[in-house]
Amino acid sequence: MTRGPSVSPSEQPAPRFETLTVPKASDVLAAEVRERILSGEFREGTALPPERQLVEQTGLSRATVREALRILEVEGLLEIRPGRGGGAFVHRPGRESLANTVQLVIRGQRIRLEALHETREAIEPACAALAARRRTDRDLAELDAAHAELVGADEDIQRFLRANVRWHTVVAQASGNELLIGFMSALSRSIHAATDLEPFMDAGIRGLTARAHARITDAIRAGDEAAAARRMTRHVCGFAQAAAEVDHRTSI
Amino acid sequence: MTRGPSVSPSEQPAPRFETLTVPKASDVLAAEVRERILSGEFREGTALPPERQLVEQTGLSRATVREALRILEVEGLLEIRPGRGGGAFVHRPGRESLANTVQLVIRGQRIRLEALHETREAIEPACAALAARRRTDRDLAELDAAHAELVGADEDIQRFLRANVRWHTVVAQASGNELLIGFMSALSRSIHAATDLEPFMDAGIRGLTARAHARITDAIRAGDEAAAARRMTRHVCGFAQAAAEVDHRTSI
Repeated sequence: MTRGPSVSPSEQPAPRFETLTVPKASDVLAAEVRERILSGEFREGTALPPERQLVEQTGLSRATVREALRILEVEGLLEIRPGRGGGAFVHRPGRESLANTVQLVIRGQRIRLEALHETREAIEPACAALAARRRTDRDLAELDAAHAELVGADEDIQRFLRANVRWHTVVAQASGNELLIGFMSALSRSIHAATDLEPFMDAGIRGLTARAHARITDAIRAGDEAAAARRMTRHVCGFAQAAAEVDHRTSI
Repeated sequence: MTRGPSVSPSEQPAPRFETLTVPKASDVLAAEVRERILSGEFREGTALPPERQLVEQTGLSRATVREALRILEVEGLLEIRPGRGGGAFVHRPGRESLANTVQLVIRGQRIRLEALHETREAIEPACAALAARRRTDRDLAELDAAHAELVGADEDIQRFLRANVRWHTVVAQASGNELLIGFMSALSRSIHAATDLEPFMDAGIRGLTARAHARITDAIRAGDEAAAARRMTRHVCGFAQAAAEVDHRTSI
């Protein structure tokens, strides 16, 4: 320490502390395990040591270790199986956790229907173009199956709506882009809600939808990226405009 | 009960049970509170009853109530403040929770760099077009500030990269579309990682980037949707192609 000029007690301000945020032990342990899962050190399906051993190794209480495991379970990073042969198993987060969070955000923030349409108009033509570039035989078979399901739904509107969402999801799947697939599967429940307009879904609209899907599927099969994107743009925008005329909801 | 034909004990198969999945009490309580937050019944900032009262009202144990609150805290639906005036406060999930999950998925699944570029090419031109339609004076001021920061970064590459991500995020912000804003802010950390190529970011590339941003900002200011989208497409695709020549990472 260097010696400064001496200060009399009255001049010296009283020492003060700011509010301290002390990290919770369970958050510290959860962060450590999370990092080791995400870095790839703990592989998919690996079992963590049993609870008792984690308590010994970390020096933390049993309650803390449990809480940390529970946090990681909620985040979808661990799967906790009870009983014999049970334990905490590493699970890398995937599409479902993305879909769940997007769903939370959409409901929590009351996403406007217009915002959903705009997002589809941005993402779906890109998915269609990439699908035309990368579709496998299996993708084509799945597109055909979803299309047959939609055509076969006939007067069953709910079946028609499910087949519609399925076809759009399969196009995203065929794009081979895991982020776009994630975003689209995250939006799929909202797309279903947005298209759930029974009186509007008359035979005319259902026929238009089926023809649009068939033509987009043709372009994807032919590997024609530009046509796939252009037709998807027309399909998604056209639906949004037509639906806006009968749908007076503003949020979903 | 109707009487069927009598069956001798030897013919009657022994009753069997399938494995039962019993929901955890904490999950049941968490689901109930989650639903009431998302439905809008519990508004942002509302305090839940104190722990003691929740125990009384639900008939569940103190440990169960705590665990349920902790789950909702991890999900970002409650903010738990300790001490006097503390408690569990309702927090509607927003952009941060989306960003965190997308980040988990990107790291957990090792998203390919190519997938990130393709997703930017889908989303960013749409953001630019919507920004041209809806930008407020405040958006324009923020775009200008982010641009000035980027130009002023000079030889400081890290400052340049931060200003670059900030400008792209502000364009999304100006789109007024909460889903696209969410997706873009979710991608921002990955965009930073993908552009973090020190030797590549020479004065030439930095100058090109600054000019592209200036021209896109002009189109947004002028309300020219088509030009904003076209210039953003060229900027994002151009960067991806140039970077691909020097960046030999395949995932981020």
